[in-house]
Amino acid sequence: MNSMSPKQGAKGVLKKIKSRRAVPLSSRELKESVTTIGYKTSHVLPAIRLKVSYQELKERVGGKAAGLIEMSKLKVPVPPAFNISTAVCRYFLSTGQLPEVVLSQMKVALSGLEASLKKNFGKAQDPLLISVRSGARVSMPGMMDTILNIGLNREVTQKLAELNPSRARFWWDCYRRLIQMFSEVVLEVPYEDFDRALMELRQEEGVESDAQISVKGLQALCTTYQQIVKRAGVEFPENPWSQVVLATEAVFKSWNSERAKTYRTLHHYSEDWGTAVTIQAMVFGNLNEHSGTGVVFTRDPSTGAKRIYGEYLLNAQGEDVVAGIRTPEPIEEMRRQLPQSFGELQKALTRLETHFNDAQDVEFTIEDKRLYILQTRSAKRTASAAIENVVQFVQEKRLKPAEALQRISFDQVRQLLHPTLSPSKEKPLGRGLAASPGAAAGRIAFDPERAVSLHRAGHKVILVRRETSPEDIMGMAVSEGILTSTGGMTSHAAVVGRGMGKCCVVGCSDLQVNEKDRSAILNGIALHEEDWITLNGSTGEVYSGQLPTQPVTWGESAKKFFVWADQSSRIPVYANADTPEQATQARGLGARGIGLCRTEHMFFDKDRIHRFRSMILSEKESDRETAARALQAYQEADFYEILKAMEGFPVTVRLLDPPLHEFLPSIENEQEIAELAKGLGTSSARLVQRIYQLHETNPMLGHRGCRLGITFPEIYEMQVRALAASLKRNLSEGRKVFLKIMIPLVMNAEELSWLLSRLKVVFQGDAKLQKVTSWGTMIELPRACLIANEIAPLVDFISFGTNDLTQTTLGLSRDDAAKFIPTYLELGLLKVDPFESIDQAGVGRLIQMAVTEGRKANRNLEVGICGEHGGDPESIQFFERHLFDSVSCSPYRVPIARLALGRCGLDSRGSKRRK
Amino acid sequence: MNSMSPKQGAKGVLKKIKSRRAVPLSSRELKESVTTIGYKTSHVLPAIRLKVSYQELKERVGGKAAGLIEMSKLKVPVPPAFNISTAVCRYFLSTGQLPEVVLSQMKVALSGLEASLKKNFGKAQDPLLISVRSGARVSMPGMMDTILNIGLNREVTQKLAELNPSRARFWWDCYRRLIQMFSEVVLEVPYEDFDRALMELRQEEGVESDAQISVKGLQALCTTYQQIVKRAGVEFPENPWSQVVLATEAVFKSWNSERAKTYRTLHHYSEDWGTAVTIQAMVFGNLNEHSGTGVVFTRDPSTGAKRIYGEYLLNAQGEDVVAGIRTPEPIEEMRRQLPQSFGELQKALTRLETHFNDAQDVEFTIEDKRLYILQTRSAKRTASAAIENVVQFVQEKRLKPAEALQRISFDQVRQLLHPTLSPSKEKPLGRGLAASPGAAAGRIAFDPERAVSLHRAGHKVILVRRETSPEDIMGMAVSEGILTSTGGMTSHAAVVGRGMGKCCVVGCSDLQVNEKDRSAILNGIALHEEDWITLNGSTGEVYSGQLPTQPVTWGESAKKFFVWADQSSRIPVYANADTPEQATQARGLGARGIGLCRTEHMFFDKDRIHRFRSMILSEKESDRETAARALQAYQEADFYEILKAMEGFPVTVRLLDPPLHEFLPSIENEQEIAELAKGLGTSSARLVQRIYQLHETNPMLGHRGCRLGITFPEIYEMQVRALAASLKRNLSEGRKVFLKIMIPLVMNAEELSWLLSRLKVVFQGDAKLQKVTSWGTMIELPRACLIANEIAPLVDFISFGTNDLTQTTLGLSRDDAAKFIPTYLELGLLKVDPFESIDQAGVGRLIQMAVTEGRKANRNLEVGICGEHGGDPESIQFFERHLFDSVSCSPYRVPIARLALGRCGLDSRGSKRRK
Repeated sequence: MNSMSPKQGAKGVLKKIKSRRAVPLSSRELKESVTTIGYKTSHVLPAIRLKVSYQELKERVGGKAAGLIEMSKLKVPVPPAFNISTAVCRYFLSTGQLPEVVLSQMKVALSGLEASLKKNFGKAQDPLLISVRSGARVSMPGMMDTILNIGLNREVTQKLAELNPSRARFWWDCYRRLIQMFSEVVLEVPYEDFDRALMELRQEEGVESDAQISVKGLQALCTTYQQIVKRAGVEFPENPWSQVVLATEAVFKSWNSERAKTYRTLHHYSEDWGTAVTIQAMVFGNLNEHSGTGVVFTRDPSTGAKRIYGEYLLNAQGEDVVAGIRTPEPIEEMRRQLPQSFGELQKALTRLETHFNDAQDVEFTIEDKRLYILQTRSAKRTASAAIENVVQFVQEKRLKPAEALQRISFDQVRQLLHPTLSPSKEKPLGRGLAASPGAAAGRIAFDPERAVSLHRAGHKVILVRRETSPEDIMGMAVSEGILTSTGGMTSHAAVVGRGMGKCCVVGCSDLQVNEKDRSAILNGIALHEEDWITLNGSTGEVYSGQLPTQPVTWGESAKKFFVWADQSSRIPVYANADTPEQATQARGLGARGIGLCRTEHMFFDKDRIHRFRSMILSEKESDRETAARALQAYQEADFYEILKAMEGFPVTVRLLDPPLHEFLPSIENEQEIAELAKGLGTSSARLVQRIYQLHETNPMLGHRGCRLGITFPEIYEMQVRALAASLKRNLSEGRKVFLKIMIPLVMNAEELSWLLSRLKVVFQGDAKLQKVTSWGTMIELPRACLIANEIAPLVDFISFGTNDLTQTTLGLSRDDAAKFIPTYLELGLLKVDPFESIDQAGVGRLIQMAVTEGRKANRNLEVGICGEHGGDPESIQFFERHLFDSVSCSPYRVPIARLALGRCGLDSRGSKRRK
Repeated sequence: MNSMSPKQGAKGVLKKIKSRRAVPLSSRELKESVTTIGYKTSHVLPAIRLKVSYQELKERVGGKAAGLIEMSKLKVPVPPAFNISTAVCRYFLSTGQLPEVVLSQMKVALSGLEASLKKNFGKAQDPLLISVRSGARVSMPGMMDTILNIGLNREVTQKLAELNPSRARFWWDCYRRLIQMFSEVVLEVPYEDFDRALMELRQEEGVESDAQISVKGLQALCTTYQQIVKRAGVEFPENPWSQVVLATEAVFKSWNSERAKTYRTLHHYSEDWGTAVTIQAMVFGNLNEHSGTGVVFTRDPSTGAKRIYGEYLLNAQGEDVVAGIRTPEPIEEMRRQLPQSFGELQKALTRLETHFNDAQDVEFTIEDKRLYILQTRSAKRTASAAIENVVQFVQEKRLKPAEALQRISFDQVRQLLHPTLSPSKEKPLGRGLAASPGAAAGRIAFDPERAVSLHRAGHKVILVRRETSPEDIMGMAVSEGILTSTGGMTSHAAVVGRGMGKCCVVGCSDLQVNEKDRSAILNGIALHEEDWITLNGSTGEVYSGQLPTQPVTWGESAKKFFVWADQSSRIPVYANADTPEQATQARGLGARGIGLCRTEHMFFDKDRIHRFRSMILSEKESDRETAARALQAYQEADFYEILKAMEGFPVTVRLLDPPLHEFLPSIENEQEIAELAKGLGTSSARLVQRIYQLHETNPMLGHRGCRLGITFPEIYEMQVRALAASLKRNLSEGRKVFLKIMIPLVMNAEELSWLLSRLKVVFQGDAKLQKVTSWGTMIELPRACLIANEIAPLVDFISFGTNDLTQTTLGLSRDDAAKFIPTYLELGLLKVDPFESIDQAGVGRLIQMAVTEGRKANRNLEVGICGEHGGDPESIQFFERHLFDSVSCSPYRVPIARLALGRCGLDSRGSKRRK
């Protein structure tokens, strides 16, 4: 599908439209377009003294510059810098030019910078070199990052080398790097040419590393580089001021690079934010033996432990660490080597952590004993470290528990629950939809049988399929992860994957699976059975080979944290769980009930699915009843265990709602057909005909849910009998159990009352059973919302099935929408995938109507939600706001829902709102 | 599917529930349970003097008895009778017994009857024989009709024969017939045994007709008959009073016969009405040469001409006519033979027609010069006779035009438009859904190619398919009618059939089509290619062989009638028409615009569909553009002709909305695939893969409508360019044309404004084009209704696509719902198929919301409807009530819509409401 061009066709126009709409600068924005940091200059540029929130500051000058400003206010030493605001970026992108006023302000700022450091820009005497950096309100990969060494040219370099011959090599290398970086990034000259020239030079001089190249060689290389630039039809600007202007413009332009746009789409960031530019004096950690550079965390980013943690290199620049030329030493070494600077660093760290009231991640450089903090930010750490830290902060009385709830992101909660990929530089082979989080590595199996046999042989397995079906369940169960080429976020693989807590990547459309040949191709790379691959279910990335993963377990801190969440939430979180195992797991993750037990998922086992198919496929009522009776025993046992596992909490069982097409055997599987036919006492040919009869054009809108319950009444009766028996057994064993029976896909009140009157008969005369049983229905169709006032008086509870409600309200098949939803997101025609987060204006409006009118008709009506949205924080807030009585989600999303609800219970100042 | 038992499973319970609910008689009902007609009796039974409306009278005593009561009030002579009310029927069916009070009232009424006629019931001296008849509020086949000759037994017959030996044969024959009729109908003894005995007797006596059998033989036959009854385990009641009671109960029971229930379901008649029983004195037209019997119409039932029309037989009973023993003579003969009675008859007819203010259909008998009117009712006549009659009545100042509109039923309008089957006694082979009305006979073709070749060879053709697809269009176009085994009222065959005005029967589930073998089986009868079959598209019946059909053309009266309708309607009727031919036809049927021109239907032609497929299947934008350009010429020509045909009226063109799966070539058709692949410059294998890629799980909710317009923008652009060109050409030729461009399947305002801004560019700078063009969208998804306030400001008009809106709101696939909708209708879980008549509580509520909120956001918003419901009278009333600006339906439904709207314009008294 990658070769399809709908996107291209649409994008061309988008660009045209964009470029027409100019975004003017307001007079305030013009006045504040350039800001100095760490120094003051003439009255033309008031250093920032704005009384704006830190958030607003970030929006105006970008996150990095805001950090520098904050630090300079705290008297933490930073290399002086000046910033060009995001407003200028918006202006530049809409008009293609920088305003004259801004250019002259930049000149003033640069002079001020020279004065404050007593250095000279574009001169060899006390030369001032600067870096040009991008910075949006949030850290965002994909934009131009940084250009270093700006201010050098051939003349200045020549003089510098002459003034201090022992550093001649250093300066020529700086100049060479500037030409290369600037030309690649700003002038868009292909990097290969530079690489080739460098390689040829190494060969010529017979040296192995760049560091061994002679001064002369470097000098010649600079000439070669400039010729390469010329051959590309552009020119490297020898004028240092031109370097500043062009680099600034390049940063702005990089806001619209493909990578940046993709990243924004993925994270739902607005196109309109723009990036700022920060121009900062360079400091040199490699000036002498009293210099150095390092990165340090105020608390251990991996465990959260309260100790300084970091790495450091004496007499080195940051790139040396990145390039891996020298191995950095633990930060403790610095205490020995540069004790005074280390003391200053400690002081700065304490000040920063106290000020930001969060563990910090700090870059620093020491230039000739003088400490500069280059950057500070909330520490990037593992989820468990983050939890550990907020709990520490609460214990240190630096945070209230309620504030702690705001500190942990939902992504971090997700990480808490799943093994993650250890950091690495491996490039993914391809990417699909991140359907179920976590990371998994294993050997490829192309069918469930092979998955099972590989698993039995002791291998880790990744099941790779075009799409999965209930027959694959056993294979899915033994696999570490699942990868499919088709399907969306709520496809079978995705839903079951999440239910099982398995890492799962679906809809990887570049993947061509050839199940017959037992091979697949992903972006040109052939994959064979038993090959290792690794999935990142949190990003959708697929890697070739076995990448290391790291498991996470919940410590005391995590438990404490979620208790705080529960304490401030108004309503409980239930789980969608179909088996006793899932129920137990959900309870362990904090579920206080089962909101959706899908009884059709109980038939996935091979023997059961056979009987289940017999039930669907038999043409006579008596055959169906025989099949149903055989299934009743299974159901009874399952229900018994689930009720038992959830003792003290309610268990909501949805009566059968099989999407028929998922359960029908494949007509091509002749053996299966023959077996089934034998069991049904019919011929294979007749059975195939029957399967054709049951085939549906639009199974989503087909003969399912309570429609089956009405046309095949013996099935629901069997289920209710099984429920009654399992309830009885639990009660007789002295357990407190609560059952909620839910009828799916109701479209009118007549269906519901017809079914209820039939099914309640099973409980007739048994007051004990009746007392612990309530009856309800799933609201999954727009019409059910529209007549909620007729439905509500018939039931004790309703639960919104928001997956199907989204499909029908939007006319959007979750199985097919993957073909155009990405285009919609890219064009801004959808802000967010409606299967991920509830569509509040459409589906949400129907829900509101149903809740209001349903409650009016039945004051005691309980209202819940059990679609996939029950695990989406934004959707959960919506449900909470509309006074739902519970939310239910897959077990692995329970902690996310707990946190989301905990936050709902708080007002904006972090106090409890209501209970 | 007939062997499936969901219905059985459900029905068992329904019966149980029914039988539990007793329907008591109110004291009024008890008092009025038995009514005498044409005579008075003691104070116990007040002859009916009720001040109730004729309608209420019919509800209480049934249509037939109401007619008798009315006639006796008019002093028209009727055979005296008494009636047992429908209330007693309801009581009887719920309890299984007749109340004692009713039985004693019946006895009183019977004595009164004897007294009034001076005859004796159950005696040979002046014997009173009676008939027992069923009668519900409307005439309804399927119930027990009549048992004659009640009051005879062996003893009485013997005596009668002795008293008047010349009539011995007559009386024994009467008795024999009573035993047979009573035993078959009341005692449920199989009729074959009686037939066999009669046949054996004929052989024994060596005679050819029953009339030649000897008196002795008849006497013996009566004994044989009674033995047959005994062998069946029952007994023929010799007691005349028992005959009355048992026959009465049998009539009541027959209300719940399978045939009666089916008929009620088909006509949406309530189960609760019940039938009444009328017990009437028998009169004998065969008493002597001053007796006779006949049927007469006050106006010609076939043409509507104003003349007495009928048939008559001297000295005969009604059965003689039915049995075909004697050929009846024209009514004019009676004037000669029985001049006095004829004069009385004429007087009675005038009185009846005047009283009922409608042409009457009258049964009469003369018993020894005395005229009895047995029955009168509004004449059953052809639709054109009915129209002729109302126009005559208006001209005779006996009706106002507005009242005339109430007199013609929608079914009659349907008949007006289609050839109908000539009356015959042929039994249908099977039955499907009556998808498109009319009748058609032709030779079977199992594929479109064969249909075309048969047609070319001069044959009439019926296309018989499992289901039809766009590839079948040519075959459908040359066929007289279409028969499919699958699909519902809005399947491809049904929609296209109605659009073409072709007789069409779909979803004939008993039909097994084997297209490969070129044969089919319908209820055990094999059908081969070129065999003749006949379809009744108005009833869904399928007949073997060639049944005669009669065409109908519109006369002056019909034209006058519809002008009256238009004059009292507030809004115009548009038509759904996809081709110039359909547009012309629609205009001829009174359409005042095109409300829906489906552009995808323009690609059905073989060459076009090939290019169309190229467009869909090409993977490169440039290939798609080439294919689109080739199609543009076709579109331009079509649009030009349609606009021209509708000069002076608006034409609404919907941009492409192809259900992809209907347009994709079959993968099994290797030649087609190879050709297409060649055209696309790709391999067959790659093409098949692409077709798989485009396959959708739920095409209804898939990548269609404006979603295609957004991902493949070149397609809509091509269409709008073609529209602009065709408009320009018409304008330059001096025509007044109006174009409405409609964007389908919109789900949010963003889609709409994105598309509008792209597409309006085509019209930019051409004020003339802009002036005659308006822009709108089709509202087909619940979400579009919910955000109508966002959509409305962007457009000039909206049109509800109620087919899809019904599918999504109810979660009901029109292609699949046929599997359970019949069960739903039967169980009363649906009152009416929501694809036939708009679901007012659900879909209707969404429509109301959208209209109200849309108009609030855009005061000039035009609102229309173009789903199938635009041709359903009840739905039309709903749309009119909600202030729609137009309705649009298939051409052949335009007159129905005109009548429905004409009636809407009137208040209940037939005056004009508003304009």
